[in-house]
Amino acid sequence: MAEEEALRKQADTVRRLKQEKASPEEITKQVSKLLEMKSAMHPEEGKHKFVLKTPKGTRDYNPKQMAIREKVFSIITQCFKRHGAETIDTPVFELKETLTGKYGEDSKLIYDLKDQGGELLSLRYDLTVPFARYLAMNKITNIKRYHIAKVYRRDNPAMTKGRYREFYQCDFDIAGHYDIMIPDAECLKIVHEILSALQIGDFLIKVNDRRILDGVFAVCGVPDSKFRTICSTVDKLDKMAWEDVKNEMVGEKGLAAEIADHIGEYVRLNGGLSLIEHLLQDPKLSQNKLAREGLEEVKQLFKYLDLFGISDKISFDLSLARGLDYYTGVIYEAILQEPNDHMEESVGVGSVAGGGRYDGLVGMFDPKGRKVPCVGVSIGIERIFSIMEQKIEASEEKIRTTETQVLVASAQKKLLEERLKLVSELWDSGIKAEILYKKNPKLLSQLQYCEETGIPLVAILGEQELKDGVVKLRDVVTREEVDICRGKLVEEIKMRTYIL
Amino acid sequence: MAEEEALRKQADTVRRLKQEKASPEEITKQVSKLLEMKSAMHPEEGKHKFVLKTPKGTRDYNPKQMAIREKVFSIITQCFKRHGAETIDTPVFELKETLTGKYGEDSKLIYDLKDQGGELLSLRYDLTVPFARYLAMNKITNIKRYHIAKVYRRDNPAMTKGRYREFYQCDFDIAGHYDIMIPDAECLKIVHEILSALQIGDFLIKVNDRRILDGVFAVCGVPDSKFRTICSTVDKLDKMAWEDVKNEMVGEKGLAAEIADHIGEYVRLNGGLSLIEHLLQDPKLSQNKLAREGLEEVKQLFKYLDLFGISDKISFDLSLARGLDYYTGVIYEAILQEPNDHMEESVGVGSVAGGGRYDGLVGMFDPKGRKVPCVGVSIGIERIFSIMEQKIEASEEKIRTTETQVLVASAQKKLLEERLKLVSELWDSGIKAEILYKKNPKLLSQLQYCEETGIPLVAILGEQELKDGVVKLRDVVTREEVDICRGKLVEEIKMRTYIL
Repeated sequence: MAEEEALRKQADTVRRLKQEKASPEEITKQVSKLLEMKSAMHPEEGKHKFVLKTPKGTRDYNPKQMAIREKVFSIITQCFKRHGAETIDTPVFELKETLTGKYGEDSKLIYDLKDQGGELLSLRYDLTVPFARYLAMNKITNIKRYHIAKVYRRDNPAMTKGRYREFYQCDFDIAGHYDIMIPDAECLKIVHEILSALQIGDFLIKVNDRRILDGVFAVCGVPDSKFRTICSTVDKLDKMAWEDVKNEMVGEKGLAAEIADHIGEYVRLNGGLSLIEHLLQDPKLSQNKLAREGLEEVKQLFKYLDLFGISDKISFDLSLARGLDYYTGVIYEAILQEPNDHMEESVGVGSVAGGGRYDGLVGMFDPKGRKVPCVGVSIGIERIFSIMEQKIEASEEKIRTTETQVLVASAQKKLLEERLKLVSELWDSGIKAEILYKKNPKLLSQLQYCEETGIPLVAILGEQELKDGVVKLRDVVTREEVDICRGKLVEEIKMRTYIL
Repeated sequence: MAEEEALRKQADTVRRLKQEKASPEEITKQVSKLLEMKSAMHPEEGKHKFVLKTPKGTRDYNPKQMAIREKVFSIITQCFKRHGAETIDTPVFELKETLTGKYGEDSKLIYDLKDQGGELLSLRYDLTVPFARYLAMNKITNIKRYHIAKVYRRDNPAMTKGRYREFYQCDFDIAGHYDIMIPDAECLKIVHEILSALQIGDFLIKVNDRRILDGVFAVCGVPDSKFRTICSTVDKLDKMAWEDVKNEMVGEKGLAAEIADHIGEYVRLNGGLSLIEHLLQDPKLSQNKLAREGLEEVKQLFKYLDLFGISDKISFDLSLARGLDYYTGVIYEAILQEPNDHMEESVGVGSVAGGGRYDGLVGMFDPKGRKVPCVGVSIGIERIFSIMEQKIEASEEKIRTTETQVLVASAQKKLLEERLKLVSELWDSGIKAEILYKKNPKLLSQLQYCEETGIPLVAILGEQELKDGVVKLRDVVTREEVDICRGKLVEEIKMRTYIL
């Protein structure tokens, strides 16, 4: 008891210091003392404490976040369906060997399952490799599919920036032998449609081609064996200054300084059709077969993007390299242009979609190495989701997390059975309805529940209403009440909540 | 070359034997010889062969299966929303300790992740424990939520029976301090609504209460410490004869034979309200406080189920015990009544939904042990999905895997750019449209593509149409063609495909 009294006094001291805006040092000192006294009183507390958290880099979605997530998914799915895509699903884990040798330096980020006897398994790292495995396994040579699912990377999480260890990818891919750049152009059209529909601010889609990059490396004198690793370094140009990128090329990757400088002249170029034309005239680059092929095809791509009316958002950017090993042709990445009003600094600007052509991946799985050319795009939902969340919070827009049309309520006691009968009738007629799970709830609590959760109508039962064969239907916002004949109730509710 | 010739001859021999319907032994012998010759010719083949499969107990969903799955999910989600539920999501893995001590004997089936440095993680085993962890972590004391997601069990898979290692659960739960049996009754109403809407045949919902079972064990003389393990044995009554169940009780679990016999008299009872009344009069059982409480409350439940008009599908069944440890009150399980016409023997009859009350689980996570009473139900989608799949296959009903309304086609060559322009216009107007990714596809291939994939309309462009500012709109089924003014095309397509 004396201890508790001392504790209370110490708590008062802390409170007083805060009110008096005492020095932070003094407050910290007294708070520490308070905490020490507390733990001395309950020495067991904290010892057996259960760690109540989700794993590092993951999170729960609460109902409000789910409502936003479903809105985003709905916009994306509608777009994929508008382009005639089917959908598939694959297991969350694959045989470990399915993922081996597909991700280059990033393979260390793969989550493995424990060997509990049986097969060695890993959580999927993306949806592209499982897609390629699916095509080879089922001998599918052409398909247009989307797949929205979670993928797993043991990366350093930065959750405020939307970087998680468990996150969604929304993938759209076209597999099959088709004419040059037609499916590729459609993928870019899809990115444009989705980012426009989401209304998360201005965006830019950077486009490049692995063949052009490889051509640049070749004419600059990079040895073949270093193409991929130099490509990884170029990919850092969006986050690092050229000087640092050059240092990595020379220091870590062992390139001669003049070769790096030569690369630098190319990879800092960006523009539109005229840059492509210019490079096609470049005395060195135009001599490289691969680069010329890439440039000609990207030129063709730009023509199609023009027909789609989206070239104003596209930039041909030689600094774009993309991390993954499996790309073989055109590559692209969409970035948000500038922080908009709804966006806190913390979210930051960055890539929200990316993809490209990978003509060799399916062949890696086929026993006879048969190739199925593929091109696709992946929408990164987490960053978009963070922005949407902040945008909605800023707008003070109210989000309903349920779709309930009517609450069945009673004005008097002892009407639980009548409420159960009516709500059951409504459910059976397809009306979204609720009751409070109390025998005799107060009318006020029932009305408050509607206001809190956004239910627009209340169907109120009382002795008189039951006698008259009616229900009192109340509009929660206007508070207007009108007696509705029981047989007409369903129709009336449907009519009034039609826009839902 | 000589080797290849020999191989060809041996293949001919096998073929001839098969045609002549030779003895299986002779065929097997010659096939073996053929295979030996083959592997001798290509000694490396098969050695580096990649194992092209999904992990044991898992599967891919192809587009057709996805269409069925989405139909099932839509029926279930609609029902959950009709009852005013919000939705949440949790990570696919939890801290290992979150799952520890929740599943009794089944804990050995939990998938663990490899220790790669950092936290020890396990894949979720169900959605109930993550839900309880979510409630405790966020100090939520009342919520009505649904959660549809995959769970993981390292069980012996029986995929033809719909038993997988990765499978979906569709959970609906009500958490909060409410009046007796009202939320519980709603859970049963939901099972009834969903199984009716799915139209997968007649079903029965068995209901029991852990308190009644514990009361039975007590009056029969089972020691307290053996309640849960005897409960697990009783749960096998749906798959084993009473004699075998009794043997397990006596042999494995060390119960006296007369105690087992005494239990047997109770747990083989099932019926309706009159059985409940009868047991309330049972001289021994009615003396047990727990059993009496359970019986009184189940009686109350049956009254509510009557008001909901669903008691004809409900059976009070003392043999129902449920495997999991965490149930504390009413428990239930829905089974399909009999194999119906659409069902192959292999699918078998069995449980398609189950659940109950678990008032203690959230308290296991709360640092201060505060309890949040919960009741819920889980719909087992895989078995339902197998049945739906077979039903649809039997009916020869055609399932579309895309929603495309129109294919933009051309009758002549060199019209790719015009097709791209038109399809882009349609996309921008919200029409679901496709083109073939060829520069000069034949009209016939374009029409065939529509027939194969069920696209109802073709918008055909030709020199004349472009000159006249029209598009030839063709109905794929009737083959009727009519010229539509370009400005009216979107409207016309929307009108014709409205029912989609």
